Amino acid sequence: MAAGGAAATAAQHWRALLAAALDSNAHLKHSTYFQLATVSVNGRPANRTVVFRGFQEGSDNILINTDSRTRKIEEINQFHYGEICWYFTESWEQFRINGRIDVIDSSTRDLAKQQQRKESWFASSLKSRLQYLRPVPRLPVLEESSEDYQLDPSIGPLDSFCLLVFNPEQDGLMTMQK
Amino acid sequence: MAAGGAAATAAQHWRALLAAALDSNAHLKHSTYFQLATVSVNGRPANRTVVFRGFQEGSDNILINTDSRTRKIEEINQFHYGEICWYFTESWEQFRINGRIDVIDSSTRDLAKQQQRKESWFASSLKSRLQYLRPVPRLPVLEESSEDYQLDPSIGPLDSFCLLVFNPEQDGLMTMQK
Repeated sequence: MAAGGAAATAAQHWRALLAAALDSNAHLKHSTYFQLATVSVNGRPANRTVVFRGFQEGSDNILINTDSRTRKIEEINQFHYGEICWYFTESWEQFRINGRIDVIDSSTRDLAKQQQRKESWFASSLKSRLQYLRPVPRLPVLEESSEDYQLDPSIGPLDSFCLLVFNPEQDGLMTMQK
Repeated sequence: MAAGGAAATAAQHWRALLAAALDSNAHLKHSTYFQLATVSVNGRPANRTVVFRGFQEGSDNILINTDSRTRKIEEINQFHYGEICWYFTESWEQFRINGRIDVIDSSTRDLAKQQQRKESWFASSLKSRLQYLRPVPRLPVLEESSEDYQLDPSIGPLDSFCLLVFNPEQDGLMTMQK
């Protein structure tokens, strides 16, 4: 997102509104869930629920953890654009944010990006990390049931762990409220 | 959706699962809200919250009321495919349904389709209908605040009232649960 002038002010405004929505809905576990739309390899839209993992330090970029074995990685690698629809069910606020998605997986060579991936890995709960050991990727959940997987907490990102960095574009932003 | 054989069985299974999710989440007002992804005129994904208005009689088609003045109508008229992501926040169930979208607006000539549009209009609450009088389309809400608009309950669909008929395709269906 371009910095400076009106754009920066608008971005700050958006961040402030989103921060307020997250704060006032913090008692709802699903308030960090939103829907990410992409374009699939056949050109049709794809849409799924993902979990907000915070903002990238010093930017408005939105972090999303995912499994590199899911179909969306192939889709995003082919077409980098997405639109987030983030609906807060109690306050009836909707944020629509379109932008470009950067995929950081085990094959990414950029050292700074790998460092970011590592940080996101260690910022996840041990239970969250366990899902990357599973044979088949599933819907991310906030609380996992106990399963027969174990993982050394000091071990870095598994190969299947993928970080998406969603870079918002100012002109796609909308927010609505009752 | 093709009828008969395995496809019909799978469709019934999906309908049964969705009906069960709707039933068990009926105490949540937002359980009828889902996110509809389409492809915008610039080829990028678009994503917004819409409200489930029931199934079309005798089919698995999903009905959605919308305003013909919204950008999504232009998008859908250009590219007819969409993907629904319907996430039930308490039961943690996700339904992803892709399909083709039929737009029925005031210019549609097919009499049976106009009849369907009329039925959807009268099936809406008077408060819901009032939003089509507004100068600018807004996010649909379940309960409207009182406003300075009045409408004769016997009047048929306003020009801005548009019905979307979402025709699910079997192979795009997914459902996941914790």
